[in-house]
Amino acid sequence: MSEFDDATHVAEDGSAQIAPGWDIGGNANGGYLMALAAQGLRGVAARPDPLTITAHYLAPGTPGPVTVEGAVVKAGKRYTTVTGSLRRGDTRMLQLVATFGDVAAMQGGYQHVAGRPPELPPFEECVQRSAQQGPVRIAIMDRLNLRLHPDDAGFSVGQRSGTAQIRGWFAFADGRPLDTLALLLVGDAFPPSVFNLDIAEGWVPTLEYTVHVRGIPAPGPLRVVLRSRFVQNGAFEEDAEMWDSADRLVAISRQYGLLPR
Amino acid sequence: MSEFDDATHVAEDGSAQIAPGWDIGGNANGGYLMALAAQGLRGVAARPDPLTITAHYLAPGTPGPVTVEGAVVKAGKRYTTVTGSLRRGDTRMLQLVATFGDVAAMQGGYQHVAGRPPELPPFEECVQRSAQQGPVRIAIMDRLNLRLHPDDAGFSVGQRSGTAQIRGWFAFADGRPLDTLALLLVGDAFPPSVFNLDIAEGWVPTLEYTVHVRGIPAPGPLRVVLRSRFVQNGAFEEDAEMWDSADRLVAISRQYGLLPR
Repeated sequence: MSEFDDATHVAEDGSAQIAPGWDIGGNANGGYLMALAAQGLRGVAARPDPLTITAHYLAPGTPGPVTVEGAVVKAGKRYTTVTGSLRRGDTRMLQLVATFGDVAAMQGGYQHVAGRPPELPPFEECVQRSAQQGPVRIAIMDRLNLRLHPDDAGFSVGQRSGTAQIRGWFAFADGRPLDTLALLLVGDAFPPSVFNLDIAEGWVPTLEYTVHVRGIPAPGPLRVVLRSRFVQNGAFEEDAEMWDSADRLVAISRQYGLLPR
Repeated sequence: MSEFDDATHVAEDGSAQIAPGWDIGGNANGGYLMALAAQGLRGVAARPDPLTITAHYLAPGTPGPVTVEGAVVKAGKRYTTVTGSLRRGDTRMLQLVATFGDVAAMQGGYQHVAGRPPELPPFEECVQRSAQQGPVRIAIMDRLNLRLHPDDAGFSVGQRSGTAQIRGWFAFADGRPLDTLALLLVGDAFPPSVFNLDIAEGWVPTLEYTVHVRGIPAPGPLRVVLRSRFVQNGAFEEDAEMWDSADRLVAISRQYGLLPR
């Protein structure tokens, strides 16, 4: 078992654990929490892949026992839609809605891709994000092998690029292959791209996070780009693209984030 | 009362009507259905604006009685998250999750906008979309005053631009001012931008549609741009930006759409 599989195990009755070590300053990463919930919900849906999944974040997730509660709202011929929550007792941490399907069965047909993977120096020449990098311990970085484009990585030493963009490589530290469940983690695992703007670095809470899974990743690390174009009125969107080693787009994500007040 | 207010009326017990005349070939427009559901849900949330709202589409919405069912999952100091559905008896048409807040109270603070409204010829010089334009009657176009950029409008006479982009103006036909509820309709009211690619024009079902409301529209029509960048494996995303007459971004939306099979 890999660390990610261990940390996203959900029993048949929905009981699970928020594992220690996937947090930032004690609060579990939002992408990890979505993946944990999705592991339970795909059991409920009885289809392999989250095609589109949305979580609203209601309370921080600290390590310990939780329940993934899910219900089918429609089971169709090719897709099954479920609602659900991740909760501890009466405290809901995440509220979700998702449609599951079979990404492998969707491959082929008409293709028109107006985009390409971000240009990155080789994996080894990018800047590894470590758990000790900021004022707060980012424990999840011990689980990941996250490498940032050197041009986008200066924010952590006060050199902000002025463009709300982060490009980098994503892999698990223990080498676990990527699949459609792991893709849910990726778009929330990088530092927020707004850290490259002239705002106070700090906690930028996510109200909502949606991932569209568009392919099954080929072996090897992903190339990822995150951008925020509209940072205004206390809020921002953060859009991510995830590209596999075969230059295929495998997922996109979008968050509704809040600026530090 | 305007046509849109009439068509999105929801009684206190959640009972409502899918109004005739907001359809494409008999099935109500998905953005209209989201607005109808959101009207009910914002009553449940007791906050004025949908900040981020997601709907999964489960069954077509034909005119007639429906119920908007909603429940608060968290009421915080500034935001309230609700889940809900739009249903007729046992048939669920939409399943939703949304966080409501007060957009007016969020105005100000740090601003960094990396984008601008789409460049469009004046409203009167753009191509009005009519109800009679395609093989199927698009009745909703009698409720709207939708004007397409001439360069993007040729698809309806077989001249596709080859770029999955549609730019245009949005207003209500009866002049109703735009507000944050109306913004939910906009990103789904335009022809799909994939109609400008070399695919069979036809029904492109929406699995999921999410809108982020980022501002309160100033008076006057909106300028809107819709784009699909990743059309692959039977699916596509469609991203819209909505800009008001004061050149402010007021909403973004994203759909998970399916190609005709």
